[in-house]
Amino acid sequence: MLYFENDYCEGAHPSILQRLIETNMEKLSGYGTDKYCESAKEKIREVCACPNADIYFLVGGTQTNATVISAMLKRYEGVIAASTGHINFHEAGAIEYTGHKVLELPHKDGKISAKTLQDYLETFYKDKNYDHMVFPGMVYISHPTEYGTLYTKAELQEISSICTGYNLPLFLDGARLGYGIASEQSDISLADIAKYTSVFYIGGTKVGALCGEAVVFPNQAPNHFMTMIKQQGALLAKGRLLGIQFDTLFTNDLYMEISKNAIETANKLKKALLDKGYQLFLDSPTNQIFVVLENETMKKLGEVVKFSFWEKYDETHMVVRFATSWATKMEDVEELITLL
Amino acid sequence: MLYFENDYCEGAHPSILQRLIETNMEKLSGYGTDKYCESAKEKIREVCACPNADIYFLVGGTQTNATVISAMLKRYEGVIAASTGHINFHEAGAIEYTGHKVLELPHKDGKISAKTLQDYLETFYKDKNYDHMVFPGMVYISHPTEYGTLYTKAELQEISSICTGYNLPLFLDGARLGYGIASEQSDISLADIAKYTSVFYIGGTKVGALCGEAVVFPNQAPNHFMTMIKQQGALLAKGRLLGIQFDTLFTNDLYMEISKNAIETANKLKKALLDKGYQLFLDSPTNQIFVVLENETMKKLGEVVKFSFWEKYDETHMVVRFATSWATKMEDVEELITLL
Amino acid sequence: MLYFENDYCEGAHPSILQRLIETNMEKLSGYGTDKYCESAKEKIREVCACPNADIYFLVGGTQTNATVISAMLKRYEGVIAASTGHINFHEAGAIEYTGHKVLELPHKDGKISAKTLQDYLETFYKDKNYDHMVFPGMVYISHPTEYGTLYTKAELQEISSICTGYNLPLFLDGARLGYGIASEQSDISLADIAKYTSVFYIGGTKVGALCGEAVVFPNQAPNHFMTMIKQQGALLAKGRLLGIQFDTLFTNDLYMEISKNAIETANKLKKALLDKGYQLFLDSPTNQIFVVLENETMKKLGEVVKFSFWEKYDETHMVVRFATSWATKMEDVEELITLL
Amino acid sequence: MLYFENDYCEGAHPSILQRLIETNMEKLSGYGTDKYCESAKEKIREVCACPNADIYFLVGGTQTNATVISAMLKRYEGVIAASTGHINFHEAGAIEYTGHKVLELPHKDGKISAKTLQDYLETFYKDKNYDHMVFPGMVYISHPTEYGTLYTKAELQEISSICTGYNLPLFLDGARLGYGIASEQSDISLADIAKYTSVFYIGGTKVGALCGEAVVFPNQAPNHFMTMIKQQGALLAKGRLLGIQFDTLFTNDLYMEISKNAIETANKLKKALLDKGYQLFLDSPTNQIFVVLENETMKKLGEVVKFSFWEKYDETHMVVRFATSWATKMEDVEELITLL
Repeated sequence: MLYFENDYCEGAHPSILQRLIETNMEKLSGYGTDKYCESAKEKIREVCACPNADIYFLVGGTQTNATVISAMLKRYEGVIAASTGHINFHEAGAIEYTGHKVLELPHKDGKISAKTLQDYLETFYKDKNYDHMVFPGMVYISHPTEYGTLYTKAELQEISSICTGYNLPLFLDGARLGYGIASEQSDISLADIAKYTSVFYIGGTKVGALCGEAVVFPNQAPNHFMTMIKQQGALLAKGRLLGIQFDTLFTNDLYMEISKNAIETANKLKKALLDKGYQLFLDSPTNQIFVVLENETMKKLGEVVKFSFWEKYDETHMVVRFATSWATKMEDVEELITLL
Repeated sequence: MLYFENDYCEGAHPSILQRLIETNMEKLSGYGTDKYCESAKEKIREVCACPNADIYFLVGGTQTNATVISAMLKRYEGVIAASTGHINFHEAGAIEYTGHKVLELPHKDGKISAKTLQDYLETFYKDKNYDHMVFPGMVYISHPTEYGTLYTKAELQEISSICTGYNLPLFLDGARLGYGIASEQSDISLADIAKYTSVFYIGGTKVGALCGEAVVFPNQAPNHFMTMIKQQGALLAKGRLLGIQFDTLFTNDLYMEISKNAIETANKLKKALLDKGYQLFLDSPTNQIFVVLENETMKKLGEVVKFSFWEKYDETHMVVRFATSWATKMEDVEELITLL
Repeated sequence: MLYFENDYCEGAHPSILQRLIETNMEKLSGYGTDKYCESAKEKIREVCACPNADIYFLVGGTQTNATVISAMLKRYEGVIAASTGHINFHEAGAIEYTGHKVLELPHKDGKISAKTLQDYLETFYKDKNYDHMVFPGMVYISHPTEYGTLYTKAELQEISSICTGYNLPLFLDGARLGYGIASEQSDISLADIAKYTSVFYIGGTKVGALCGEAVVFPNQAPNHFMTMIKQQGALLAKGRLLGIQFDTLFTNDLYMEISKNAIETANKLKKALLDKGYQLFLDSPTNQIFVVLENETMKKLGEVVKFSFWEKYDETHMVVRFATSWATKMEDVEELITLL
Repeated sequence: MLYFENDYCEGAHPSILQRLIETNMEKLSGYGTDKYCESAKEKIREVCACPNADIYFLVGGTQTNATVISAMLKRYEGVIAASTGHINFHEAGAIEYTGHKVLELPHKDGKISAKTLQDYLETFYKDKNYDHMVFPGMVYISHPTEYGTLYTKAELQEISSICTGYNLPLFLDGARLGYGIASEQSDISLADIAKYTSVFYIGGTKVGALCGEAVVFPNQAPNHFMTMIKQQGALLAKGRLLGIQFDTLFTNDLYMEISKNAIETANKLKKALLDKGYQLFLDSPTNQIFVVLENETMKKLGEVVKFSFWEKYDETHMVVRFATSWATKMEDVEELITLL
């Protein structure tokens, strides 16, 4: 059985496990105060070109989204997101559980546009009764999006500028950030993201780590953010587990290096699909490929390959997703291609 | 510098790391649905003698407490706990953050008594206005407690029976459960705990794992508990990380074996303290030793040994805590003794 | 200045004030346990033909929505509503503040259709990953809707039947229920509503009372609903204030009688608008009339009449709302007509 | 049957009802923006000698406590209160429902002392792990307390000064404030309270109104406080109901005048109880009298008088409470005395 169902089906990059073993019996202080966390933060600050950034390591994506968003919103505020945004759709209501509304915007291929955002904000503040409504308190985007698409630097800049104008923090969910940066179609660096957002996270779980997301506040974290992490149940006692992983990933550019593999294998697969006449559902430049399959084809293929069922396309077709990762072997892609 | 500050300062038991490496490139399904999670659950069901138990693996203690408690309480209910209970004191308000009050009971050495509990419940229901108050909806105990003390089987049975009488789930926080079971003063087995509680967890973080707590519902988990884990931000994508760890810990009795070391080293230290005339703050039969130190002594000792400052004893003395663990070396204890 | 801005700009029906004075110095027990509350409940049970209904009086609409919804949802559930539903749009996030998501459905003139609901539920349960999402736990409709429109009995029945099939409570927000029942286009009685819903409320604030909404559970209220009212801060100490008002409103059919005035005055105005060639934004059969006005006309009219600005229609037109109520004088409508 | 069970068993002062009738058909804007609210605020500002105060009218006490506290606390903060404080004990967990812990302090006759508060805060900040705990974010006192006792001006000043030192808002719950001010043993005026607190409320429900509490921020309300009132479900559509009541209560000193009656009748009763040899449970200088009754006496008296059962005193005695109010008739007190 070939496995293209998601990008978190393997363990960790071997260097990480190696490092865990080497440091295993060192006695380190808890809760992220150890030297490996410090070292990892320093390396991330450097690659993000934000020497004063406050950085925290959390365990997973939903947790990170809920913790960051609820820490930054005021009680009467909600978070603006694409209707397809992970926080709106696939996190079991984790944001609402903290008391805040997700304010949906329409999307195009998983992205919100600066214009949609601007219109929303203008309409809100033009309504004489806006104080009976949920105040927009933050903007959430994912990059890559849930559809594997990417914002251009110009788009990010434009959204950022609207946020600044309305004094709204911009939060970028980078669960798959490595794959976004590694895509040849991307013109955005980590330093750009640090420049144009108020907070973002660099995903570890889907990019080489066992678990872990690095939350970066390029300027300053909210007061007592650590206590809020604890309050959310998201503070790891053995913070070393996260520090060592990110320290390894940000040594010798490992994070970027292993990200490239996901792009190369995805590109190979995408080209083959197009060559064979398959219809892409949309053109994703990262590690997720969405393709329209005839139901019968899908069923047969499903017997030998694992992939994700995304949504119904029409009565006789489905959209399915193939995901690659840092760990995908090119030979598996080649074998998959022969099966298409 | 000797390190007796806590029981989570090392990494994991080497067998765990070994197993992570061996399984690293296997492609496994996510969110706790992999075969290692299954295998770990089966082993835990067996050692707990509850073949139908529902078992879930979460990442850390505060997270587990908040998730379990908020999943089991009704909206108008609170959780009864000793005033010293971890949930009441040291979790940054994680329970209240989910909307529920912690109903404090007075404690003796960290334990609540059946009588105190019974009195509380009787008084509550005798008050004609109880429906203007927070309903008791669950009882929380920790075992070992935050002071390292243990409930006897008779005490547990008695508390359990009151809970049954009032139809209240009994939840046992076993963050250090291995050390409780391993203590020679304990007459309680895992099977006893499964028999007398509605839900408990077996702590991994403090007993040999990198992270992870195994939540056991001896009879049945609340409906859609998995969705509530997700909603709390506590669902690990690579659930294998927890499954493999618990599978290892519950293979060949490893969990119990390594727990003994914490008890043996603690006993050695306790005996030496008593021999040298130190005053124990209370008599803990597990891996935490609370001792009253004269301030000057404490200061000098603090230059070569790390320990925890617990609380002020009087103007010239402090209570400090020495903690041992599965990983504490007897030679370190011996060196510490020479310094006392 | 003529006043058609909303339906809550006057005090209470004079009979209510009269009754408050007559009963003022009686010493009554608090929190809704007095004899006037009892009497009002009995009368409501009768007119709703549900002799075993549990009835509670709350103070206002948003409060009622938040209390009822959060009392009936499980922690992992959200409430389905039209995107235009009051709870989704105009209650400052009161539902999310209790931890629950509002699951938006598209609307037609403020109504959801049985088909849209059925599709939503089918799609949800077909998604293999639905346990990572917010479970639909309740359906909310308003009747009349925020656009003054009404469900037919057949439509209500159909929605109700889908809810029953999925075991979802159906909640009807009747903030303006009197005007819905009184409309000659309505084929729905209070008894019908009691038959087809799990809970609904009869609005007092907008229909003759100073404040107050009567929540009716035709079968049974959730356990300890009164405690949850208190917990929400919605329990009135002098419950008599609500009991006396509803007792008066449901004596000699007063509620229905005074509701008719809103319909008659609205009908008069609607006819005049059509006669004069104005374009209705939609055809509301109740007490709210939405009309498209040219911006200049609107501005001039606004100097002598108060009305609501609803939304932009196009660059040169706005949608405005005229609302009538139990207290609107026909002579004021006639004067308004001369100004159009 | 004589009625001394509580201080909210009658309707409203007749002047209030009179005023409601006179203004009933005036068309006024909603949500507290009408001229009567404005006028009431102006009068309250004057009597409190704080010309820039922000004032809001809410409906009831629990609601006010929950709204004010949750609006002023940061997410990681709790509110300090006496263990007997209404918010801790008798509000069904309304504070915790908003996500915040009530941090209990021991009390003396319902009051906290400056020393206890100071000790608590010092101990908190001395604990090296305080960021794993709930931050003290506000201090709540009730005046009169739940036991009818009063802070002296010196005590209030001292508590206020500690709060200022720690940058903690001080919130005074004045559900029975009129009776506190009217007591001859009080040396505190409304202006003093406005000087020494960050926010307080003037209780209407228990002092002459049908409902309503006036929340006074002597300096400034939190940003968007009105939206938070709405979010809590506490915003009254017909805000006039509250405005007219408080405007009446603060016209010609009515609030203070009617408060005196409660004190005079209570004093009369207290003197009689002492004369007849009854034991007071504590010496309350306001409108609540707590007396120790022999069980048999209590039972017999209960057949002709309604009072509150407070708590068990010993096996053969109970503490009961007699409450007077603005509406208590001296002749009823005299009749009660003959029955003692």
